[in-house]
Amino acid sequence: MNERPTLASHGLGPGKHSRLRRILFDHGLRNGTALFLPYDQGLEHGPRDFAANPASSDPRYILDLAIEGGFNGVVLQIGLAQQFFWEYAGQVPLVLKLNGKTEIPSDAEALSPLNATVEEAVRLGADAVGYTLYVGTPAQEADFEQYRKVRADAARFGMPLIVWAYPRGSAIEAKGGRDSFYAVDYAARTASELGADVVKLNFPHPDKTEHVPDPYGTAVSAQQAVDAVVRSANRSLVLISGGSHAGDDAMFDKARRSMDAGATGLIFGRNVWQRDRDESMRFVATLRKVLEEHPSSAG
Amino acid sequence: MNERPTLASHGLGPGKHSRLRRILFDHGLRNGTALFLPYDQGLEHGPRDFAANPASSDPRYILDLAIEGGFNGVVLQIGLAQQFFWEYAGQVPLVLKLNGKTEIPSDAEALSPLNATVEEAVRLGADAVGYTLYVGTPAQEADFEQYRKVRADAARFGMPLIVWAYPRGSAIEAKGGRDSFYAVDYAARTASELGADVVKLNFPHPDKTEHVPDPYGTAVSAQQAVDAVVRSANRSLVLISGGSHAGDDAMFDKARRSMDAGATGLIFGRNVWQRDRDESMRFVATLRKVLEEHPSSAG
Amino acid sequence: MNERPTLASHGLGPGKHSRLRRILFDHGLRNGTALFLPYDQGLEHGPRDFAANPASSDPRYILDLAIEGGFNGVVLQIGLAQQFFWEYAGQVPLVLKLNGKTEIPSDAEALSPLNATVEEAVRLGADAVGYTLYVGTPAQEADFEQYRKVRADAARFGMPLIVWAYPRGSAIEAKGGRDSFYAVDYAARTASELGADVVKLNFPHPDKTEHVPDPYGTAVSAQQAVDAVVRSANRSLVLISGGSHAGDDAMFDKARRSMDAGATGLIFGRNVWQRDRDESMRFVATLRKVLEEHPSSAG
Amino acid sequence: MNERPTLASHGLGPGKHSRLRRILFDHGLRNGTALFLPYDQGLEHGPRDFAANPASSDPRYILDLAIEGGFNGVVLQIGLAQQFFWEYAGQVPLVLKLNGKTEIPSDAEALSPLNATVEEAVRLGADAVGYTLYVGTPAQEADFEQYRKVRADAARFGMPLIVWAYPRGSAIEAKGGRDSFYAVDYAARTASELGADVVKLNFPHPDKTEHVPDPYGTAVSAQQAVDAVVRSANRSLVLISGGSHAGDDAMFDKARRSMDAGATGLIFGRNVWQRDRDESMRFVATLRKVLEEHPSSAG
Amino acid sequence: MNERPTLASHGLGPGKHSRLRRILFDHGLRNGTALFLPYDQGLEHGPRDFAANPASSDPRYILDLAIEGGFNGVVLQIGLAQQFFWEYAGQVPLVLKLNGKTEIPSDAEALSPLNATVEEAVRLGADAVGYTLYVGTPAQEADFEQYRKVRADAARFGMPLIVWAYPRGSAIEAKGGRDSFYAVDYAARTASELGADVVKLNFPHPDKTEHVPDPYGTAVSAQQAVDAVVRSANRSLVLISGGSHAGDDAMFDKARRSMDAGATGLIFGRNVWQRDRDESMRFVATLRKVLEEHPSSAG
Repeated sequence: MNERPTLASHGLGPGKHSRLRRILFDHGLRNGTALFLPYDQGLEHGPRDFAANPASSDPRYILDLAIEGGFNGVVLQIGLAQQFFWEYAGQVPLVLKLNGKTEIPSDAEALSPLNATVEEAVRLGADAVGYTLYVGTPAQEADFEQYRKVRADAARFGMPLIVWAYPRGSAIEAKGGRDSFYAVDYAARTASELGADVVKLNFPHPDKTEHVPDPYGTAVSAQQAVDAVVRSANRSLVLISGGSHAGDDAMFDKARRSMDAGATGLIFGRNVWQRDRDESMRFVATLRKVLEEHPSSAG
Repeated sequence: MNERPTLASHGLGPGKHSRLRRILFDHGLRNGTALFLPYDQGLEHGPRDFAANPASSDPRYILDLAIEGGFNGVVLQIGLAQQFFWEYAGQVPLVLKLNGKTEIPSDAEALSPLNATVEEAVRLGADAVGYTLYVGTPAQEADFEQYRKVRADAARFGMPLIVWAYPRGSAIEAKGGRDSFYAVDYAARTASELGADVVKLNFPHPDKTEHVPDPYGTAVSAQQAVDAVVRSANRSLVLISGGSHAGDDAMFDKARRSMDAGATGLIFGRNVWQRDRDESMRFVATLRKVLEEHPSSAG
Repeated sequence: MNERPTLASHGLGPGKHSRLRRILFDHGLRNGTALFLPYDQGLEHGPRDFAANPASSDPRYILDLAIEGGFNGVVLQIGLAQQFFWEYAGQVPLVLKLNGKTEIPSDAEALSPLNATVEEAVRLGADAVGYTLYVGTPAQEADFEQYRKVRADAARFGMPLIVWAYPRGSAIEAKGGRDSFYAVDYAARTASELGADVVKLNFPHPDKTEHVPDPYGTAVSAQQAVDAVVRSANRSLVLISGGSHAGDDAMFDKARRSMDAGATGLIFGRNVWQRDRDESMRFVATLRKVLEEHPSSAG
Repeated sequence: MNERPTLASHGLGPGKHSRLRRILFDHGLRNGTALFLPYDQGLEHGPRDFAANPASSDPRYILDLAIEGGFNGVVLQIGLAQQFFWEYAGQVPLVLKLNGKTEIPSDAEALSPLNATVEEAVRLGADAVGYTLYVGTPAQEADFEQYRKVRADAARFGMPLIVWAYPRGSAIEAKGGRDSFYAVDYAARTASELGADVVKLNFPHPDKTEHVPDPYGTAVSAQQAVDAVVRSANRSLVLISGGSHAGDDAMFDKARRSMDAGATGLIFGRNVWQRDRDESMRFVATLRKVLEEHPSSAG
Repeated sequence: MNERPTLASHGLGPGKHSRLRRILFDHGLRNGTALFLPYDQGLEHGPRDFAANPASSDPRYILDLAIEGGFNGVVLQIGLAQQFFWEYAGQVPLVLKLNGKTEIPSDAEALSPLNATVEEAVRLGADAVGYTLYVGTPAQEADFEQYRKVRADAARFGMPLIVWAYPRGSAIEAKGGRDSFYAVDYAARTASELGADVVKLNFPHPDKTEHVPDPYGTAVSAQQAVDAVVRSANRSLVLISGGSHAGDDAMFDKARRSMDAGATGLIFGRNVWQRDRDESMRFVATLRKVLEEHPSSAG
């Protein structure tokens, strides 16, 4: 298990520090861990994601869930934030997702265009912003350029920047795929090198050893892989994402291994709201138990 | 007693709403009232204000007091905020006072120059900004011009704007003085007319009837005066300020009348920290009782 | 004796931290103290200041003196910095004085106009900038406005800001004069409230008790006064200035009391170079002994 | 005699260096000295200055004179430069005078407003710009502010900046007057402190000892005074101005003493063109002899 | 052996001069040579570079190594600089690498996007900035455009600009490859033509004569090649890079030949930290001996 970075060790200015402290210590379990509820799938995948639980298509359902479930934050695109968040202002931290795209065109040269600005996030009272960086995409130059301006604005406004560090595009598909240990590890490091305050990562699959560069061709355990990935993120706080809906035991296992590895928290969406409300709450309660066992010091 | 405005009735955007809700419902008594600790007297009056309790000259003493006393916010100028607030980031809301001056030159044509910007307040993680408007000063044109830009920036960033509405300058001194019912009532209305989210007012002295225009020349009770003043502030939330150190009973009386009148809270500085620590805490405890009896709904 | 603030406690970003650390630990005694050589008197007082030692009129003489004497920095206006510093670049830290004026017109409403920008200081390779704030001047509004922009630029460029906090103008002359304990103490606090990283102060004269506000009307010892002044500066590092040429024993006494009080260093100009070279060096050697006895930790 | 600063010692960038080298080594005596013909008196004093030689009212007369007399440059305001210089472009260097005023209002609070910009000087093909700084004027703040921008533009465009450093205004009149040794010496130093590449000074009158500060109250010789003044200018090249028309012997004496003192050249207007053409040429020929005896190295 | 350019011959302004002098004479061997520790491989190659010595994945390990090994500077991307450098501020010069990319997509049309600005480098207290110019890339137009703005900003802020002049892309691969004498020599000249203050080059391979234009088709010795390359860099100071980890003798040979050729220093990363700590120190000690034998004058 890696030492988890504290906010004080982070080199943060007072604005980022205040906002992250609020997220981590004034909400959720108030123990320095985090459980985020992402809700940008309506843009990323379309309404098909709401079929399993039609109620989930209503942003109010999600916001109520976030509050009742004691989440540390909810992630919205600008439109839903403007239309729905005002009624919930101050009740749960808002993470404004700044870029996003539909899944309709090919993502061989994936790039997630900007839909809102950090200034808009400030105006909405958000406590953090999110940016999807498609690590390794052939459109890397445009992506880095777009990201750099977001990072600079986030610094100017003292707004924590959460980077969705997602390996994507034809090049990484040719080198083992987007969720190989190699890809996720490189993504973690890239986010840290480029100044993410928090990085959202998928759980690595160390068994995907084909076509990956050395030393990733040698199989390691899932725990070893996630340990390495958290280490590669350095002082960027790590959130492990749930990904598509899968079995609960696999999810708890992923959660526990991630927290053991030194991650700061979890960001689970479809696994939470693609089921009925009561089941969601039971699932969340178990996730919270995992987080409860992995407190952080405020120092 | 006036009906106290709720945040929902305020016409606030989500940013101001989130931040005010945080101040009023996530700190202090968490019941929609507020107790603020102002600490800009070192600039406004100089270190002489710390003579009664030398420990109070250290900003850390004040920040600790604000946290221990369960204040809803602490008011600092930019320098102290930068040098001291980072250690307390997220533990107590920061109100960045944007303007201020020394008392050395004459204030016949009082104007309080800008020392910081709303953008800096955002960067520091502040939850509100403060601006002193010298109502009735001969320098009114420069003051309104300066204020207008601050108000616009506060709107742009969703940052609650607290206006210190202080009658000041030679003209108001010739018309009954700065704390007459006439002057304070006019100041309350001016803040409301010019877009204050919150207004800080001195308690009116309805007995100062000399040289004031009608109908303020007729004496009314203290309660009638403060009722009227809160009414004049409309939907700008009212904070009543403590002013210079006076007897505790007078203070509690002032506090109770103000809250009865529909004020949202109190902003007491010298009355709090110009005594030793234990006495401060006892004094604060009694103020909190007054606030406890005047809850607001979050609606 | 007060606890001296360390750089780490200062809330500084890495740029200001790097530059101050360079000044305090890579030059002079390398023990966290500082001895600065100011050389803007040619503008502030005119060439008459060089009459006592005509060689001192040549900036190269001063730069050589700064290097040989092991100073932590030399203070120049933009013109001399441009014409002379290039030959000494990297040998002694440059403090670019950003504002300054001649003494010819009246200073009843003193204001020191800007002669250079923080960006020019960066371009010249300076390690700090200096700004004269005339505390209490009737031109306070223009002064604070001008200062605010300099402070913001200094923050933007990570450039340490040294404030010459000088009580000046008709209003302070009517309240005990520019070097009273009251005036210097208020100046120290003003610099801290407004965000000085370092503040240059004159040694207070606690015997000037006429016309000053309470509690300054009661005489205290010189040591008590300088202790209070350093305390009022909070986390702004204090430099005590030498002022006009006076007896050596008085100077050493002032130096020792200041360092005992928790000052970080001394800024002595005329007392250094208004005598011949060898005498200067002997004088500096004794000042250095005082500094040697008051080391700071880098922490 | 002082050592005359060479261009290489000046800390100039390549643009200023190229243009000054062109003025000093491709025109006039090509020996590093300079003789300038100022022609802004039509604005400063009005057409009355042309009465002694009506032909001098025609700018073409002056430009022809400058070329025939082998001047190193001619000084014009923007209007004359636009209307007349195009016919002479490249034949004689143009110094565009950027500010200027009429003599009609009082100059108790003298300030010379900007009439053109450095960018216009570039567009006109000028080789230097001129700026009148009224040293010691009660309008010092506005003057320094205006000057600072000109200096920064001159740096940005690599354009040599010639400062007319003229003590002026009620304050200096009360301290010995505008051409006292004290006043001229302070003006020389001020120009150097504020970054003049070249400074135009009046010849000092050391016999004006009344009301001046020490040590200027003690009479010195004219040579001692001009020596000191050139020394005060440091690396700003000195031009001594002719002033109002006076006897030729006095002029030659002034010229010789100035060049002996280390001045780089002379700037004589009315003494040149307030007489008929042939006399002008004879006068200029004698001035050139003085310059011939004081060559500079290009180093 | 070529004459090594001195800082004074460089045409540098005072800011670049101060900062380079600091790097070359206040750190490392303090003899005008330089040994840099580059640490951007986590972005350029991914965490796989840390497999040989897992401790090297922690930026603190590298910063400690840089200080203990007496390096003249450490090269970081913006994220690591922000999160880690603040603890080391002032202890070792920071070179902020401004652009960089992952190796995942093809580099046939290599372009390294900007991740930070020169202004951010100033704010962080960096002493130089680094830019990778892919000499000969088909994306040359975008690269030169991006580079031009960086160069202009570096000039504006007096910040030394180190150019990683790397032949890259399909075109150079078709003409002998990225490390041919032809390619490296052209890269050195390109950096000099485009205004690099310092240029980082790979050691040329004069044996790669296939497909290169005349006269590079004729084999020369390694010493002749590196001599020519340093000559091509003109007054841009040359740093020779270590490249991927290879045998120590080959490295020392490369180092000695480079310094003999007039290079100013070495920039070795993987060869330093891809081994255990003690071995690193022994390796560095031998490199320092080479530099010790090739001192530069500060002139």
